Amino acid sequence: MLSLNRFDSSKAEGLEPDVASLVARRASSFGASSVLFYEQPLHIVRAEGVWMHDAHGRKFMDVYNNVPSVGHCHPHVVEAIARQAAKLATNTRYLYDNVHDYAERLLATFPAALSNVVFTCTGSESNDLALRMAKKFTCGGGFIVTNTAYHGNTEAVMAISPSSFRDRVVPAHVRTVAPPDGYTDPTGDVGARFAADVQAAIADLEANGIRFAALIVDSIFSSDGIFADPPGFLKPAVDAVHAAGGVFIADEVQPGFGRTGLNMWGHQHHGVEADIVTMGKPMGNGFPMGGVVTRREILDPFCQETGYFNTFGGNPVAAAAGMAVLDVIEGEGLMRNAHEVGGHLRAGLRALMADFPGVGDVRGAGLFTGMEFSRPGTREPDRDTATYVINAMKTHGVLIGAAGAHGNTLKVRPPLCFSRDNAEHFVDVMRTVLAAR
Amino acid sequence: MLSLNRFDSSKAEGLEPDVASLVARRASSFGASSVLFYEQPLHIVRAEGVWMHDAHGRKFMDVYNNVPSVGHCHPHVVEAIARQAAKLATNTRYLYDNVHDYAERLLATFPAALSNVVFTCTGSESNDLALRMAKKFTCGGGFIVTNTAYHGNTEAVMAISPSSFRDRVVPAHVRTVAPPDGYTDPTGDVGARFAADVQAAIADLEANGIRFAALIVDSIFSSDGIFADPPGFLKPAVDAVHAAGGVFIADEVQPGFGRTGLNMWGHQHHGVEADIVTMGKPMGNGFPMGGVVTRREILDPFCQETGYFNTFGGNPVAAAAGMAVLDVIEGEGLMRNAHEVGGHLRAGLRALMADFPGVGDVRGAGLFTGMEFSRPGTREPDRDTATYVINAMKTHGVLIGAAGAHGNTLKVRPPLCFSRDNAEHFVDVMRTVLAAR
Repeated sequence: MLSLNRFDSSKAEGLEPDVASLVARRASSFGASSVLFYEQPLHIVRAEGVWMHDAHGRKFMDVYNNVPSVGHCHPHVVEAIARQAAKLATNTRYLYDNVHDYAERLLATFPAALSNVVFTCTGSESNDLALRMAKKFTCGGGFIVTNTAYHGNTEAVMAISPSSFRDRVVPAHVRTVAPPDGYTDPTGDVGARFAADVQAAIADLEANGIRFAALIVDSIFSSDGIFADPPGFLKPAVDAVHAAGGVFIADEVQPGFGRTGLNMWGHQHHGVEADIVTMGKPMGNGFPMGGVVTRREILDPFCQETGYFNTFGGNPVAAAAGMAVLDVIEGEGLMRNAHEVGGHLRAGLRALMADFPGVGDVRGAGLFTGMEFSRPGTREPDRDTATYVINAMKTHGVLIGAAGAHGNTLKVRPPLCFSRDNAEHFVDVMRTVLAAR
Repeated sequence: MLSLNRFDSSKAEGLEPDVASLVARRASSFGASSVLFYEQPLHIVRAEGVWMHDAHGRKFMDVYNNVPSVGHCHPHVVEAIARQAAKLATNTRYLYDNVHDYAERLLATFPAALSNVVFTCTGSESNDLALRMAKKFTCGGGFIVTNTAYHGNTEAVMAISPSSFRDRVVPAHVRTVAPPDGYTDPTGDVGARFAADVQAAIADLEANGIRFAALIVDSIFSSDGIFADPPGFLKPAVDAVHAAGGVFIADEVQPGFGRTGLNMWGHQHHGVEADIVTMGKPMGNGFPMGGVVTRREILDPFCQETGYFNTFGGNPVAAAAGMAVLDVIEGEGLMRNAHEVGGHLRAGLRALMADFPGVGDVRGAGLFTGMEFSRPGTREPDRDTATYVINAMKTHGVLIGAAGAHGNTLKVRPPLCFSRDNAEHFVDVMRTVLAAR
């Protein structure tokens, strides 16, 4: 999914001198691992709230990054990090208060059965750990993911991330299913179709001698194209998973921490209970931290067999950052804001459909919106328009990205402090950009 | 290795009330993943330099944690984190200056061929990535590690970490070799013996149809028991690895960033060049960050096949923390200090051998010292004395841990700002504690 909207170093002519210099330095030190956004990469120097500022004094509305979820450089979070970093930053082999205050506050957002948390540093580490817990608990090894899923960057997690497969084949222990895509799904009952696919995948694993372990989904299906409706569509699949003795892992790295508006966790949108929940990106508003929440009977056997220690996981600075993020989500009413402004944003974008038939669908929950471009009169993907829009909106000072198997769905995912005015500005710019196509 | 010196919750009676309360809360939220140091866990509230302070006003000299490597809560690092967190904290899909300043300064500490760096968040992520680079570059899949190696906590990395195996068997793609232990090695040429074992392991992998990929070692052999002498002992093994078409991965998560005194990186003690170097713990003095440094021809094919993106890796706050750590190492002469104070410390500890025949060996490099307890007159491991010493020294306000397959070697690993006075205090307390045995 990162190949979309990627800077092409063979087209480096015409870059501003500061950008050209950084691109060259980057090619030298990062080598082949250097991937940049945009045909003309951005040289960013500071950010606050929903705004990022470049070295030339231009400002950009950030409608893409879901890490600075309560707003770039939120002073409450920054201060919490600074204060705690000056006081104590060590590992969890010692007792200290704030990690337990934080653990309890975090766990209070889950059903009582999800009573244990393990802290990590990243969403990738969280998913890597979750897969192993699921294997140990089920004595299985087979995993089901969606066609264009992305769950992280460790070896084990990349193996269940088809969006990063490129030319590689799906590993033997993995089955992929089409995401619950209500836009292109011809059946009309996306939940039943998804559950049937999951059930078939379970049967296929078992037929190949691979015991089923888990279904893992990003509960907003971000890299698949962003699917949230109708609420409840996950339930039949989760029931099928449980009936087969597997566990359901909700990857909340992207939708978690209130982004979907009505719920703290994306899977709650579907009225299901997860067996394991993984989290990362927005947890510390940029401070590297992640976590895995699960039931005691799932954690116990894993710890008996293997154990887990993460040097930086749950350190006091992370706990302070995480606590401050929860403070801001509550104190500033960001879930309610995500719900209201997200709805307002989607209504504004949907209103464009009358004038611009290439806008095939606008969907999402809270401040996680997908805007899909199709060839007019069809539901066939139109990636070119999506790519055009991303770069044209950047020219107009608005940053977004693309998602989905065909890269034709805009991923609209601003900080949760995004205001109605911000949303209206976004829609205005979108109208301008589409009109100029 | 973490089972040594571990709090036993069945012996929780008699804990101070604040400790008992935190232990109970921890059991509730962390569940089976809760592991604490010491028979009586410590309730820490703040730390600075080489000192940690508990909730009862007691202070402890920290001679164990190698994360706060330039000193707990070093003001220069804290200020760098606070300043940058308030300004910009985003991912490396945009350009910003300080990550490139940092990457170049870090790479300047390596030979020119090691020209590329990939930033991660933890040593585990670094090693997980390094293994995949090695596999891709060599088209192999077999790894050689030491008997009690620990390289991290992801699924792939735990598979090459025998110290975390417990009752599990060594995976088919892994071979273990005895560490270069000059104390118990009967051959007298630890480098030749180690190389012969590595060569035999390569042959055994190939005989089983598994192409050899890499030898990976923590270049100070921390969890194996800390082995540094004679300098150069790694060279024959690294030559054998290269002759067999494999790569040598130097895990510098523990010895790196000047801890061994004369060299920035532990493997340089042996006059060898690594193909891949991994780093973590001390890199940000507690800020979660890691990295992999390698040659362009090793990174290229991996990126072509798979690519790698780490959301938090190389973010500007990490870059600021990492830069500040390098500032302090240079500005305060910490490598020279590590060399001199480490030597002074070992001389003081060796002087105890005359009075305490249970002190079998004192060894190490810079401020990474192993002190091995053996049954007097033998080289047989004496774990009981090591465990006694650790808890007794804690009572005297000094924190250390144990290492090695038998848990009989003290791991003496203070912040690099450890002074001659600190070292002498440590030796005095050790004398007192041993005399009271």
